[in-house]
Amino acid sequence: MSEQANDAALRHLITLDGLSGAQISEFLDIAESLRATAERPVNKLPILRGRTVVNLFFEPSTRTRTSFELAATRLSADVVNFDVAASSTKKGETLLDTLRTLEAMRCDLFVVRHQENGTPEYLARHAAPGVVIVNGGDGNHAHPTQGLLDAFTIRRHKPDLHNLTVTIVGDIQHSRVARSDIHALQALGIGQLRLAGPAALLPEQLQSSRCQLFHDMDAAVRDADVVIMLRLQKERMAKALVESDRDYARDWGLNADRLALARPDALVMHPGPMNRGVEITDDVADGPQSVIFQQVSNGVAVRMAVMAKLLGAFQ
Amino acid sequence: MSEQANDAALRHLITLDGLSGAQISEFLDIAESLRATAERPVNKLPILRGRTVVNLFFEPSTRTRTSFELAATRLSADVVNFDVAASSTKKGETLLDTLRTLEAMRCDLFVVRHQENGTPEYLARHAAPGVVIVNGGDGNHAHPTQGLLDAFTIRRHKPDLHNLTVTIVGDIQHSRVARSDIHALQALGIGQLRLAGPAALLPEQLQSSRCQLFHDMDAAVRDADVVIMLRLQKERMAKALVESDRDYARDWGLNADRLALARPDALVMHPGPMNRGVEITDDVADGPQSVIFQQVSNGVAVRMAVMAKLLGAFQ
Amino acid sequence: MSEQANDAALRHLITLDGLSGAQISEFLDIAESLRATAERPVNKLPILRGRTVVNLFFEPSTRTRTSFELAATRLSADVVNFDVAASSTKKGETLLDTLRTLEAMRCDLFVVRHQENGTPEYLARHAAPGVVIVNGGDGNHAHPTQGLLDAFTIRRHKPDLHNLTVTIVGDIQHSRVARSDIHALQALGIGQLRLAGPAALLPEQLQSSRCQLFHDMDAAVRDADVVIMLRLQKERMAKALVESDRDYARDWGLNADRLALARPDALVMHPGPMNRGVEITDDVADGPQSVIFQQVSNGVAVRMAVMAKLLGAFQ
Repeated sequence: MSEQANDAALRHLITLDGLSGAQISEFLDIAESLRATAERPVNKLPILRGRTVVNLFFEPSTRTRTSFELAATRLSADVVNFDVAASSTKKGETLLDTLRTLEAMRCDLFVVRHQENGTPEYLARHAAPGVVIVNGGDGNHAHPTQGLLDAFTIRRHKPDLHNLTVTIVGDIQHSRVARSDIHALQALGIGQLRLAGPAALLPEQLQSSRCQLFHDMDAAVRDADVVIMLRLQKERMAKALVESDRDYARDWGLNADRLALARPDALVMHPGPMNRGVEITDDVADGPQSVIFQQVSNGVAVRMAVMAKLLGAFQ
Repeated sequence: MSEQANDAALRHLITLDGLSGAQISEFLDIAESLRATAERPVNKLPILRGRTVVNLFFEPSTRTRTSFELAATRLSADVVNFDVAASSTKKGETLLDTLRTLEAMRCDLFVVRHQENGTPEYLARHAAPGVVIVNGGDGNHAHPTQGLLDAFTIRRHKPDLHNLTVTIVGDIQHSRVARSDIHALQALGIGQLRLAGPAALLPEQLQSSRCQLFHDMDAAVRDADVVIMLRLQKERMAKALVESDRDYARDWGLNADRLALARPDALVMHPGPMNRGVEITDDVADGPQSVIFQQVSNGVAVRMAVMAKLLGAFQ
Repeated sequence: MSEQANDAALRHLITLDGLSGAQISEFLDIAESLRATAERPVNKLPILRGRTVVNLFFEPSTRTRTSFELAATRLSADVVNFDVAASSTKKGETLLDTLRTLEAMRCDLFVVRHQENGTPEYLARHAAPGVVIVNGGDGNHAHPTQGLLDAFTIRRHKPDLHNLTVTIVGDIQHSRVARSDIHALQALGIGQLRLAGPAALLPEQLQSSRCQLFHDMDAAVRDADVVIMLRLQKERMAKALVESDRDYARDWGLNADRLALARPDALVMHPGPMNRGVEITDDVADGPQSVIFQQVSNGVAVRMAVMAKLLGAFQ
């Protein structure tokens, strides 16, 4: 079931599936300690000085790349953005030769983002000793740093996770964010998980005693402590599954009326970038319950924690 | 009239319009002090260590981006080049969400370049407290760091600005460089400004007692202390307004014969990149009166000054 | 004959043609001393702090750019990647104006890669005093840092160069790598050079008493101490010269059977990226005699040496 050996010393971060609550909490604790530093005006730490981080992005994403880049820079690592579209893979170089080449240049940690499931894991299986692979999002498989930053954001506001109800709304089926959120929150012992979305996009195998599927948005949001809205991936989803933006907003969008069904202090979350007016309305996205931009801030701290921990800075 | 509140503490740099001579002089004085440092072999200053500068370029410009990047780097800031073409705006993210996202990652200063007028000002109006927006050029509105570096270059050679005649030649109508030069020089009390170019490209509203329009290049250049040639923006200008490169060179190009009409020690300036053989001949561009590459050097010093000042390093 | 004045103080690195064995050895000796540092976990040296290196790549190559970028970064230089495709050359700026502009921003060293022969040399002839040009590969002319890193790799394994036989196989005619390897190895007094490849791709003028042409791969490889395989440049070579990948592999590819003809301890080299299954088989590329990824590691050390030496850090 678990894709990852649950041994004490985690070497790479490919998925949160199979990680223990203690392992996940350790990342969050380190992120908490780094976050304080990150808030200072001079926010550089010498922790990874002389180490090299490569952003190996096969699927472009300027915002995620920037988050990893800033995380590495603030730990004083050197950062190389290896734009794969422009690189030798065009010339037919294999994925492994690209890895070996960058390893030979003494790059220490690779953030790998790829449109196909399994590429980061494949590279992790073949990485040289001491070299670290961090999954920056692969296909619809996993986005572990997003799962960690979402858990981190929830824990900062509502530390008593065992008593929380968290609702995730959208295209669960194709969402690596949803998958990693679910793994993180379940490992941390979240009280109740609710997954809501169009029937065709709700994977039945995720259902369990503590994870329920909802075919009605109002019911899913009622009395929730946290509502995580997913981005409507227009490009990825079969068009037939969603009739129109407008229908989607009506059936599955979060607006003020729906949010009123949740707990009065419920958090609103979104991994970004938002389709405003589709899965979320402006007043909710910018309202007092939204912690959407805190997620972004926390993302840098969590990525600092992952890099520092996996490169051995926190034993 | 003024677009910018003329208060003591300038927070952003969007336009030079409305700035006092004292405010502009302060930037130039700081640039002067930084320029000395910039000339040293080891030209790094720890002034902005731990601060993050983002080049948010919607309109690509490698040379301007590099100037800002080097300015920030030499102040020891971390620099992120946020390539907007490749970013989430493609995915429909709003401009403000991009700003909020990067603010949430604790980016301190944004250099914004955009093909449409007003984008930097719009972002400045919505920037979080403490976050600084610098206009890196917007549409045909303003290019304030270019205005400052041109004023700086003139002042270094001819400090008695009150007695100078400065001629600007070209497509004044569509030039953000011309507009910012005019604002800088007028605020600093320049003696006489002359604007020359094809009639259709000379905006009448700029005319004043100390700013004359010229429809003849020879007359405009005669006895001038400084001649600023603008780039012929082939892509921006309606084709009908200029018959051909050749006609333009004949009527509005600066060559040795025309330059001989100006003061013997007149400076020749151009914001680059030059269309050699169109608005300027090789012998003039590379001649002893040309300070065109000094403008480039001064650009780095002026941008260092702007970033350092606006981020509070010089109170 | 020699393209480069053989004076004591080398200012640029454009070609290895004309360099003395002593000059080449000096680069290799510096690389050797830097390599030890490069192997340390914290591999930064303050040697080029405050200096600026520009990667001026007209022909894109992410892997070579990254090698130069890391070399500069580990000497603590600031690095600017000047993406020429996106730059002012589009706007018609001349090559020299681009150079002058970046010089004016106080960039100290330019790595120039260009699809046309002679561009780095042209820029070197026009560079300002103190500014250094390093050829990062031009057309089919030269790739001097590749020549140095190949010589360095051979020397580390087999220091007695005078008694070695080195075989280079492939499209010698169009290979700047081959050309620079030949210059480096001949200057260092290599025992015997053998050039092998399809007849149409073997330049007769390279033949000499210590450099033989081979029209048969088996004969070329027999008893060799080093076999350097060139990449089959599909895009560059006239299609008619090679019938198919399969024919090429059969006639000119290195496989285990052929390698068995060489000395038992023969080194296998390739500049990368490899066309696996064409000029080299997987078992050979990944076998115990392959030093292909050592070449990559050595490339960083050699580029550090070149930059440090030419910028005056080792007198």
